[in-house]
Amino acid sequence: MNHSPNKGTIYLIPTTLGDTNPLEVLPLSVKKIVEQVNFYIVENEKSARAFIKSISPGKSQPKLHISLLNKFTDPLEIPDLIDPCLEGHDVGILSEAGCPGIADPGAEVIKYAHQKNVKVVPLVGPSSILLAMMASGLNGQSFAFNGYLPIDKDLRKKEIKRLEKLSLDANQTQLFIETPYRNDGFLSDLISTLIKAYKNLCCL
Amino acid sequence: MNHSPNKGTIYLIPTTLGDTNPLEVLPLSVKKIVEQVNFYIVENEKSARAFIKSISPGKSQPKLHISLLNKFTDPLEIPDLIDPCLEGHDVGILSEAGCPGIADPGAEVIKYAHQKNVKVVPLVGPSSILLAMMASGLNGQSFAFNGYLPIDKDLRKKEIKRLEKLSLDANQTQLFIETPYRNDGFLSDLISTLIKAYKNLCCL
Repeated sequence: MNHSPNKGTIYLIPTTLGDTNPLEVLPLSVKKIVEQVNFYIVENEKSARAFIKSISPGKSQPKLHISLLNKFTDPLEIPDLIDPCLEGHDVGILSEAGCPGIADPGAEVIKYAHQKNVKVVPLVGPSSILLAMMASGLNGQSFAFNGYLPIDKDLRKKEIKRLEKLSLDANQTQLFIETPYRNDGFLSDLISTLIKAYKNLCCL
Repeated sequence: MNHSPNKGTIYLIPTTLGDTNPLEVLPLSVKKIVEQVNFYIVENEKSARAFIKSISPGKSQPKLHISLLNKFTDPLEIPDLIDPCLEGHDVGILSEAGCPGIADPGAEVIKYAHQKNVKVVPLVGPSSILLAMMASGLNGQSFAFNGYLPIDKDLRKKEIKRLEKLSLDANQTQLFIETPYRNDGFLSDLISTLIKAYKNLCCL
């Protein structure tokens, strides 16, 4: 695909979570791009500014142009977000933690950028999904990320059983995500539901 | 889980492909671990040594202990691979390109390490699968990696149609991998097969 040299590039910039020192887990290429880019699409302005400052302390914060993209964004406003790009500026997309486009609202902007023939460059950084998959020792030739499972207990157990069956039938590793304060209850549901599935399997 | 302090840790070390400068896309944490670890499980000794040298030029190559793990490895030999770890040495797993445990033979060793209660630490680095997902603009809340599709043309088209249906029915993004020399034929198959599916969809 040919991209117009008059348009800017969209960089997908991974970020860190919590107190991690960004330069311990983000490569030099991320630092270089953050030093170069002044237009950003972010989920939260305060944490985005703090992240940019930690990567590039000398960067002028007043010169940053920051647009918000989060669950409150009207889908009709998404095309406007890449206007700076169409005017020739490079634009960085930052999610709250992890990689833009993966389990965050960034994907809609990226889709629109492709429709406008804007070059999209993903940068390397931490993804809890990929790190969990690597460290699991489960099948990494075939895996699925399922986002959040339902909150309702019955629906959630039903979904866990469906994923367990898929995992057994197709040898496909199943990944999902949960907010920290629901982790304990979620783990209990997993253990009780999967132990039943395991017992049923042993009785066959 | 408690890990014995007398055992070493297994580090999953991502690597680069081709002429990429490793320190452009790998974070500092990878350099630190490579400088510290002398025991490795690798797919190919020559490229692993070149990678280690590029990250840590001053490291003594004769001091490296390198074990092979690839498609020729007898599964019965896998337990022996983590012996250095059980003896207290940290061990690094390097795949040929990308992240260990993802579409490579590393997962079997990692699974065994968990059985032996050995701590496994995944490090951040480039994964073509994740970068493709980020840049696609497709649904990043639900996606599946399917490894290699069948080589046989009819079986491959059948599998492409199955994945297309899954993508349409469940809004699940489908990812797969192919060797470079098969890319052109594979893209043709995708275009011809998916255009048919698209036309059928439009006729509904």
